[in-house]
Amino acid sequence: MNLRVPGPTPLPDPVLDALSGQMINHRGPEFAELIGVVTDGLKTAFETSNDLLVLTCSGTGALEAAVTNVLSPGERTLVITIGVFGDRVVEIATAYGADVVRLGFPYGSAADPDKVHEALRAEPSVNTVFVTHNETSTGVTNDLEALAGIIKGEFNKMLVVDGISSIGSIPCPVDAWGIDVAMSGSQKGWMAPPGLAMVSVNQRAWEAVEKATIPRFYFDLARARDAAAKDQTPWTPGITALYGLRAGLDLMLAEGLGNVHQRHARIGARTRELVREMGLELFADPSFASDTVTAIKVPQGVEWKALSGHIREQHDVVLAGGQGSLSGKIFRIGHLGWVTDDEIDQVAESIKSALAAVRGSSVAAG
Amino acid sequence: MNLRVPGPTPLPDPVLDALSGQMINHRGPEFAELIGVVTDGLKTAFETSNDLLVLTCSGTGALEAAVTNVLSPGERTLVITIGVFGDRVVEIATAYGADVVRLGFPYGSAADPDKVHEALRAEPSVNTVFVTHNETSTGVTNDLEALAGIIKGEFNKMLVVDGISSIGSIPCPVDAWGIDVAMSGSQKGWMAPPGLAMVSVNQRAWEAVEKATIPRFYFDLARARDAAAKDQTPWTPGITALYGLRAGLDLMLAEGLGNVHQRHARIGARTRELVREMGLELFADPSFASDTVTAIKVPQGVEWKALSGHIREQHDVVLAGGQGSLSGKIFRIGHLGWVTDDEIDQVAESIKSALAAVRGSSVAAG
Repeated sequence: MNLRVPGPTPLPDPVLDALSGQMINHRGPEFAELIGVVTDGLKTAFETSNDLLVLTCSGTGALEAAVTNVLSPGERTLVITIGVFGDRVVEIATAYGADVVRLGFPYGSAADPDKVHEALRAEPSVNTVFVTHNETSTGVTNDLEALAGIIKGEFNKMLVVDGISSIGSIPCPVDAWGIDVAMSGSQKGWMAPPGLAMVSVNQRAWEAVEKATIPRFYFDLARARDAAAKDQTPWTPGITALYGLRAGLDLMLAEGLGNVHQRHARIGARTRELVREMGLELFADPSFASDTVTAIKVPQGVEWKALSGHIREQHDVVLAGGQGSLSGKIFRIGHLGWVTDDEIDQVAESIKSALAAVRGSSVAAG
Repeated sequence: MNLRVPGPTPLPDPVLDALSGQMINHRGPEFAELIGVVTDGLKTAFETSNDLLVLTCSGTGALEAAVTNVLSPGERTLVITIGVFGDRVVEIATAYGADVVRLGFPYGSAADPDKVHEALRAEPSVNTVFVTHNETSTGVTNDLEALAGIIKGEFNKMLVVDGISSIGSIPCPVDAWGIDVAMSGSQKGWMAPPGLAMVSVNQRAWEAVEKATIPRFYFDLARARDAAAKDQTPWTPGITALYGLRAGLDLMLAEGLGNVHQRHARIGARTRELVREMGLELFADPSFASDTVTAIKVPQGVEWKALSGHIREQHDVVLAGGQGSLSGKIFRIGHLGWVTDDEIDQVAESIKSALAAVRGSSVAAG
């Protein structure tokens, strides 16, 4: 199967082999070594010297951890959203009682730095700003460096970044851009199975954690930090997924982080080129098109279900549909983690063939 | 390594093999089949026809899910605790603003049904009672059938059971005992890796979920139920751990649930017998000694660190120390999941040898 959804991503053989490692005591020396190596590798990929914590949950768990650890009920908070995952932060922060200012941009476009500037001017009581780096639902990558320049540089706010489908695949230098809290998920560019989320936390964020009063327990980052100081996790961790993450990090570091980023940039560009060649329309603003996931408009007169069925059954290629309000309107190609040019060529071939078949049959039926 | 901590537990070869399965789309038909088979197997092992939800988290996450989904801030709630994990429920419920009545019993003893009766008489405003079935920290199994008879039968309260280290290993018929919410964790008796928790929820509990106002998002059981209706999970699930759980369930169902329970009972009894033969003292009240984990007092004049070091280095056996206030005072042998008589014999031999060595060296030093 050519699995090309934006996570879970295919696992290379060394990762698959690592997953069948026998269990160990999560309070013993083998685990200390495991979490040590994984943490060091993640810090390299996050380009950070901040604390780096591994949680056993999905990326959404990491979003919840970020919200509940830095905010207090009633706290005015700016959430910049350009898609389903930005809206998820709005939903989580609202569920936990934050007073959310939602700065939304049309799905398919990136956040406009000028509007962020305006919003921050209009909201002096906001202490913390949430931004999605790469919006998996729309295939848009925000210009995070520019946004961070405003949020941190000009306004000196705390910056929390959903880097779930960006960090490790496209450049997101956490320390250089001054990101106070950054998150990722194991099933994205890391060539590891789902079940783990990674969160970096700097000193400023720890000070916020001290003051934040939203209730939390499982996702309490202070507990995770205290356990990490003993090379442990506060609760039993996903050991098998950690074996996979260690093996995935080994491959990434052997390839070199710069080379990993370049490969994603090249394959992202190639994907968009092939899509255009087929006469299909990209959903994302081309200036901000993501190098980890490409969103494509479902052409007029074509049913996504019929298209994806053909792609899947005839070509063993698995793509992702649209989420939420985008369901049936777009489809998405994941190209993060373990991905080659050949696999993307095969995806393009499968879409071409499926379009011909689906259009042919609708002509025949008509 | 003979890993004999009360979770993570060793994985048999068919489970290890299953873990190296390639990734799939968590919104596709392969996942629907996977979660369907796992859910059915879990319902058999839980002996329930209630909804059965799989969450990506540790057992503590399941405890948090139970607390946050059925309670409201300020709600008077009875938590029966006989150890660290009962106290964890107290801590979670308190963190989320419940008004907790803690009914604690000395570590090492079981909950006294008469005192539970008294507490319920004294607290008519309590709607929900939390009980630990098997307390992993002390090696005690509560007489849950008797407790349920009072809590459900006499007082008709909602009953939430931490069955994390019991269900699947020792009898805990969820429906027969009327348990409204029951939880377990994949790394316990299920012969699967950590990273998943399982929660059964009946109709009465769903009605409580409707009314409960503690904030929740990642652990929102209603979202999990709605996703389960589409053979999905609301957030990306731990697919690799699910492969392991499916393989572990296959083995359990092939052995037969009754046989699995009998094996645990036999090996639990044998462990206690060997411990007594060595002249060591059980920590738990013998009438309520657990068949999944045995807690033993560290003998006078012996350092647990020295003892466990010898056991580990000379015999490749890994046991668990005491948690919290029991640290250094007791140690624990896990015998749940994939465990044979021979392995327990080896554990006993290793303890005997280590005790002789440690006592010999302290005599030599003295």
